[in-house]
Amino acid sequence: MGMTYTLVLLRHGESEWNAKNLFTGWVDVPLSEKGRGEATRGGELLKEAGVNPDVVHTSLLRRAIMTANLALDSADRHWIPVKRSWRLNERHYGDLQGKDKKQVRDQYGDDQFMLWRRSYDVPPPEIELGSEFSQDADVRYAGEPIPRAEALAQVLVRALPYWESEIVPDLKAGKTVLVAAHGNSLRAIVKHLDGIDDATIAGLNIPTGIPLVYELDEDFTPVTPGGTYLDPAAAADAIAAVANQGK
Amino acid sequence: MGMTYTLVLLRHGESEWNAKNLFTGWVDVPLSEKGRGEATRGGELLKEAGVNPDVVHTSLLRRAIMTANLALDSADRHWIPVKRSWRLNERHYGDLQGKDKKQVRDQYGDDQFMLWRRSYDVPPPEIELGSEFSQDADVRYAGEPIPRAEALAQVLVRALPYWESEIVPDLKAGKTVLVAAHGNSLRAIVKHLDGIDDATIAGLNIPTGIPLVYELDEDFTPVTPGGTYLDPAAAADAIAAVANQGK
Repeated sequence: MGMTYTLVLLRHGESEWNAKNLFTGWVDVPLSEKGRGEATRGGELLKEAGVNPDVVHTSLLRRAIMTANLALDSADRHWIPVKRSWRLNERHYGDLQGKDKKQVRDQYGDDQFMLWRRSYDVPPPEIELGSEFSQDADVRYAGEPIPRAEALAQVLVRALPYWESEIVPDLKAGKTVLVAAHGNSLRAIVKHLDGIDDATIAGLNIPTGIPLVYELDEDFTPVTPGGTYLDPAAAADAIAAVANQGK
Repeated sequence: MGMTYTLVLLRHGESEWNAKNLFTGWVDVPLSEKGRGEATRGGELLKEAGVNPDVVHTSLLRRAIMTANLALDSADRHWIPVKRSWRLNERHYGDLQGKDKKQVRDQYGDDQFMLWRRSYDVPPPEIELGSEFSQDADVRYAGEPIPRAEALAQVLVRALPYWESEIVPDLKAGKTVLVAAHGNSLRAIVKHLDGIDDATIAGLNIPTGIPLVYELDEDFTPVTPGGTYLDPAAAADAIAAVANQGK
C-alpha cells in the first residue's frame, strides 16, 4: 500500500438552539453545556486513538470554533495552526433562521418542511437583508459572496473551492487535518469524497462530537468508504436515533 | 496626526500552578477557574472599549491559548485568524520548573532566589534533558532551537525575531493585533517598544487579564509611553499588590 492522507471530520455538539428546536444556520449561537462535553470527549477519542491533528480548519461560527478549541485541548493538540473560512459554515437556512421548527412545520405542512430540510437542491426562502437573523452587516463576512439561503447543493458549491485550495494542500504536505464544522458542510465534503449521489446523501447523517477518520489514497479516494468513527458503537446509536426520528 | 497602529497585549490569568506556588515556565499547565474568568473579563473589556482584534498571536502554551480563546469569544472576535509561536512562550525556568518557590528560596537563599527571578540576564540552572519537566521530547518544538533555561535577556533575543517577522507585518497591514502571552514574553515586547533599560525593566509588572493597548506611530514608537490599560484602576491595584509583595 502506498502513502495515505489522514483527514478527520468533527461535527460540533449540541448548541443552545438545538436544545430550543430553532433553525440556526448562520446565527452564531454558543454550544450548550452538553455540547461542550461532547467536544471534550471528541478530543479524548482522538488522543486514545493516537490520531494527532497537525492543523485544524474551522468555520467562522463559534459552535464549531469552540468544538475545535475544546477537542484540541483535551487531545493535547491545542497548539497546532488554525485556519478558518465561512466556506465551512453550516448551510444558510434563509428566512427560516431563528424560527421554531415545529411552528414552521405547522405553518407550511409536512411536505414543504421536509423539502426544505432534506431535499438536495431546494433552498428555503431567502433571508431579508437587515433582518434580525441576517448576517449581511456582519464584519466577519465583509467583501465575501455570502448566500441568503442554501440547500445542500449550494453548500457543496461554496465549500469545495476551500477543500481544493486549502485542505488538500495541507493533506498533500503530509499533515493530519482536522475539520471542525457542521452537519451540512461536512456532508458536502463526505458526498464529494465518497462519490455519493444526490438522492442518497439525503439519508446520510453525521453524528455530533465523534471524530470521523478518513484515510485517503493518492487520488483522495477513501481507503474505507464512509470513513471510520472513533467510537463506532456511539456513532451507530446516534445514526439509528436520527433515522427513528423520521418514523 | 498620521495613521497609528493598534497593538493589544494580554497576559494570561491564573494557572493551576500559580495557585500552587510552583515555577511553571514551559510546563503546559491549564488555567484555573479564576484564570478562565479573567480571560472572559478581558474580552468583555475589549468589546466595551470597541477594540476589535483582526488577528491574534499566541504562544504554544495552553494557558495563553485558552486565554485568547475565551477572551475572543466574549469579545465576539472568536472567528479571527490565529498565529502561534514558541517564541511567545513564557521564560524557560530551567531546572526550577516544577519546583516549589518557597523550597527553592529556602534552599538557595534570598539573594540567589531574587537573582533568578528578577535579574535581567542571569538565567537559572539549565534543565536536564529527558527530565520530568523538560520539553526536549515535546513534538510541538521539534526542530526548533529551544532553550534549556532563560533570563529575560534570552527571552528578548528569541521573541524579537517573531515580533519583526510576524507581528509588525500584521500591524503594517492595518490590522489590530492581539498578542495573548506571558509575563516575560510581554515584558520583552514592552521593553523593546518603550525603550526601557535593563535595570528598569526588573521593576515592571504587567497585570493578568487586563488588555494593554498601544497606539504606535509610523516608527512603532508608542504614542502614549507604557500604553493604556482598558481597566486602569484594576491595573493600578494589581501593580501595587505585586510591588507590596516584595516588601
